Amino acid sequence: MNQQKATNITWHDGAVDPQERHKNLGQKGVTVWMTGLSASGKSTVAVALEQVLLKQGKHAYRLDGDNIRHGLNNNLGFSADDRAENIRRIGEVAKLFADAGIITIASFISPYTADRDKVRKLHDDAKLPFIEVFVDCPLEEAEKRDPKGLYKKARAGEIKGFTGIDDPYEAPTNPELHLPTHEYSIAQSVQAVLDVLEKKNLLKA
Amino acid sequence: MNQQKATNITWHDGAVDPQERHKNLGQKGVTVWMTGLSASGKSTVAVALEQVLLKQGKHAYRLDGDNIRHGLNNNLGFSADDRAENIRRIGEVAKLFADAGIITIASFISPYTADRDKVRKLHDDAKLPFIEVFVDCPLEEAEKRDPKGLYKKARAGEIKGFTGIDDPYEAPTNPELHLPTHEYSIAQSVQAVLDVLEKKNLLKA
Repeated sequence: MNQQKATNITWHDGAVDPQERHKNLGQKGVTVWMTGLSASGKSTVAVALEQVLLKQGKHAYRLDGDNIRHGLNNNLGFSADDRAENIRRIGEVAKLFADAGIITIASFISPYTADRDKVRKLHDDAKLPFIEVFVDCPLEEAEKRDPKGLYKKARAGEIKGFTGIDDPYEAPTNPELHLPTHEYSIAQSVQAVLDVLEKKNLLKA
Repeated sequence: MNQQKATNITWHDGAVDPQERHKNLGQKGVTVWMTGLSASGKSTVAVALEQVLLKQGKHAYRLDGDNIRHGLNNNLGFSADDRAENIRRIGEVAKLFADAGIITIASFISPYTADRDKVRKLHDDAKLPFIEVFVDCPLEEAEKRDPKGLYKKARAGEIKGFTGIDDPYEAPTNPELHLPTHEYSIAQSVQAVLDVLEKKNLLKA
């Protein structure tokens, strides 16, 4: 062990000051929670938003079905309880990422107001910013897009409990941002989220 | 919507190139998994390590009992199944953090080799670096420290299934780092982890 090196090592008990994290990262942590129907454009906007933020030198990370349903939540199904637990776990993970100073982009249908409000409360209690983005697209339009053929299967009864068909989507009544993706281009949607982050002063330490 | 602003917004389909993340952060993501008996010094080293990394301008985040047991895993107890699920979820979250480019410091007793090896495999499969740190302290010494009085309660039979008393601790046989905390100072322990990160070239993009 090199003693001279070790003398540079100083620390104090307990947690790191969040501001130290923010200074290092040049930003504050936040959860951007995108909710909307299947095929409403959540993932498309989330993918573009993450890339644009990274190009600006910011630190963003996307939580979505791909990295959650096959990993952390691979032991959950689609029962009412499992759906609630799915969103609860994602909310807890998003909170950890936001606490770490990351711009966390969570993109999940998350159809129930009660589940989304619990995630908001988690963040509020931890004094971490939470931005609910209602990715709004009329059902007819989402069903027309249907890139994975899921609406077709739901209409045929091959998928049960599909949001918008035989399970409700409870639209946010007071989201931080409303994105009508049938009217906005992807670039406009991304810019609208950036504007909210900017306005809330989250893109600097 | 300001069209001129929107023209700066460009993206491509699919995931971000990990190297872009690394360039932004000036480091690579990794999970540093600290395993050892209760009171072996895991948290002490983890807290100091996180702070030292942040002072060096690096981006580190600690996962530990405080932010996991009261949050993501607040619906798990201490049965064999729940213990395994506890480590599985933590492993999945650590993997997400490592994927996000963060130096992730997980500090949990994690007494079973099988559970730790699953977490290692998760990282291996995703080509994310995993550093197992055996925080090694003789049981007698840990029991003498006993800062929370847990060993005392376990000896009195007030806590059942306590690692080292009436539940086994399976020591890593081939960890990336062995930290005998009864012989090393905290600064020496931190330096030893930094040396491994340095040697594996993880502290630069």
